[in-house]
Amino acid sequence: MKVNGTHYRSLWWDNDQSVLMIIDQRWLPHEFRIQPVETLEDYAAAIVEMRVRGAPLIGATAAYGMALAAQKDPSDEGLQQAWTLLNATRPTAINLRWALDRCLAALTPLPVADRAAAALQLAHDIADEDVEINRRIGEHGLTLIRDIASRKPAGEPVRLLTHCNAGWIATVDWGTATSPMYQAHDAGIPLHVWVDETRPRNQGALTSWELGSHGIAHSYITDNAGGHLMQHGQVDLVITGTDRTTRCGDVCNKIGTYLKALAAHDNGVPFYVALPSPTIDWTVSDGVAEIPIEDRAEREVSHVQGLLDDGTIGVTQVSPTGTACGNPAFDVTPSRLVTGLITERGICAASEDGLAQLFPDLAAR
Amino acid sequence: MKVNGTHYRSLWWDNDQSVLMIIDQRWLPHEFRIQPVETLEDYAAAIVEMRVRGAPLIGATAAYGMALAAQKDPSDEGLQQAWTLLNATRPTAINLRWALDRCLAALTPLPVADRAAAALQLAHDIADEDVEINRRIGEHGLTLIRDIASRKPAGEPVRLLTHCNAGWIATVDWGTATSPMYQAHDAGIPLHVWVDETRPRNQGALTSWELGSHGIAHSYITDNAGGHLMQHGQVDLVITGTDRTTRCGDVCNKIGTYLKALAAHDNGVPFYVALPSPTIDWTVSDGVAEIPIEDRAEREVSHVQGLLDDGTIGVTQVSPTGTACGNPAFDVTPSRLVTGLITERGICAASEDGLAQLFPDLAAR
Repeated sequence: MKVNGTHYRSLWWDNDQSVLMIIDQRWLPHEFRIQPVETLEDYAAAIVEMRVRGAPLIGATAAYGMALAAQKDPSDEGLQQAWTLLNATRPTAINLRWALDRCLAALTPLPVADRAAAALQLAHDIADEDVEINRRIGEHGLTLIRDIASRKPAGEPVRLLTHCNAGWIATVDWGTATSPMYQAHDAGIPLHVWVDETRPRNQGALTSWELGSHGIAHSYITDNAGGHLMQHGQVDLVITGTDRTTRCGDVCNKIGTYLKALAAHDNGVPFYVALPSPTIDWTVSDGVAEIPIEDRAEREVSHVQGLLDDGTIGVTQVSPTGTACGNPAFDVTPSRLVTGLITERGICAASEDGLAQLFPDLAAR
Repeated sequence: MKVNGTHYRSLWWDNDQSVLMIIDQRWLPHEFRIQPVETLEDYAAAIVEMRVRGAPLIGATAAYGMALAAQKDPSDEGLQQAWTLLNATRPTAINLRWALDRCLAALTPLPVADRAAAALQLAHDIADEDVEINRRIGEHGLTLIRDIASRKPAGEPVRLLTHCNAGWIATVDWGTATSPMYQAHDAGIPLHVWVDETRPRNQGALTSWELGSHGIAHSYITDNAGGHLMQHGQVDLVITGTDRTTRCGDVCNKIGTYLKALAAHDNGVPFYVALPSPTIDWTVSDGVAEIPIEDRAEREVSHVQGLLDDGTIGVTQVSPTGTACGNPAFDVTPSRLVTGLITERGICAASEDGLAQLFPDLAAR
């Protein structure tokens, strides 16, 4: 989406220099830094150091890494070495493994001389597919926003709330939860987005940066504020992303999503989740019982990163020295609290039936 | 309560030096600084600068300020000047006005020569009354904790969750929500307290400091985490404080309390609110509709205070420069989500009937 009036993807191929360009996201929201990724080691570092983040973006980055490998050493051994190096960068990222496997499976049957060109085209395809999925999610989500707007006096903004960053910089473009917002804004529908800070890692700051850079009105709020806003009619629609949705429609997403779903339910505010179908886990039914939740480092809770008074990026310690911190990173919102799921194929009920009707090919497996 | 093994109140009179001693709370949780309050101007500054905070503590501090005034100039004019100076420090703090009015009403009928001694005694009384109210709240709340402990295997901790700081440093001693915890701990019942960070001002850090200093096991968690913990049976009991409770049992408290009440309700976790009866507002019924919620400074949201790497206390900016921040400071938890109210007279249902049965003298007015 746009930054200072120019459209960007979160990665792109520079044809002149034959190199991948990325946004080094470690500096966001405080600095917008673009950099080339020039060696295979640099690809690995970019993923490990979270210069690129978000499952779809990691997958696309890895595919370009395989394209670079196919230029340097297109032999079976060369590709396998690249697969091993890149796959070790974020061992639990499902999209990473998926993209690497797809590249290897597509390239190894080809004559060695054809692999470099094919690998680059495949990376382009993987990136473009992500953009297209997200564009379609946005198209379907737009109907919800348009519907709310049509019931308001002209010029009155549709007020959305989102949690975490399911935005374009976590994907190649559009984002998932944000895609309907960008499409509504670009269609001229006035919006105001309440952006949850999303402690401990404050990904809401990334969402605020995204929305602000594209020109969408928004407010950054603490994770505590959303319930009060819903109680007072200040939220028309909640849209979040998800890391994993069960076949029955339970939604695993960033910690705190469940609390917003409860508040939405208590106040009759529609609560939608935007997701590309690959994040549906057809092997899991009961999300609360079955999905293990990662406990992350205490330091993410005890320390907060931001812009210091001297203009550098640094941390401040908020809890007393030596205090134990709990840091469950995700929670599960039961499907009964989810109004609907916005997918690339359309919107469905958050239920086994709803998902099966939209994805009969996948649900039956 | 205890700090490094020594019992403290949050203010005390030093008889040797005839001066009030306070804890300068601006440095907590990172530094424990004690200081004397020596002039009337210093009393005013201590309240304005929030060296002392929390309604009961502000009231007691103001009473000692009137005692100092009665030493320096016990004339009607002198007392009135002190009243005016102190009352202007935090114009919306109800306890402040209440304590000042009580002092003036008690002192002005007395002979001028008797006023200094009477004023000091009255300040002692006001402080002691707060301690006694909180001690009783704790005694009643202890029965809830004891009951849960009796149903657990020996040695397994009762797991509580609290939001914000309704602790001893917001009162003269014991605190409100924390008083049952201190009494349970002192009675040998094993506890583990989940302490909500409570963005934007992170008063959870104060609660963590309190509990840790007294030796109570606890974890500092983000405001997003509590719902997940309740879903997974990690919370036996929630106790929060309140700034104002309506005659029907709606509870106005720090922003985010409502979200925890929703999660408790959804998971069958008892949700109690501890309150001294003066915080019941008998003139208000429907808290959501009738209680105006203060919108505070955006900088509280955009910037987070803590301990910097160089050991100084400073801030870091978390949201993008120029981003609008929303900062509603309180929310209202409807009585239907509140299991009960813990008062100095006992525990009652969060309802008009419940409160009227416990406080027939006050409810009938």
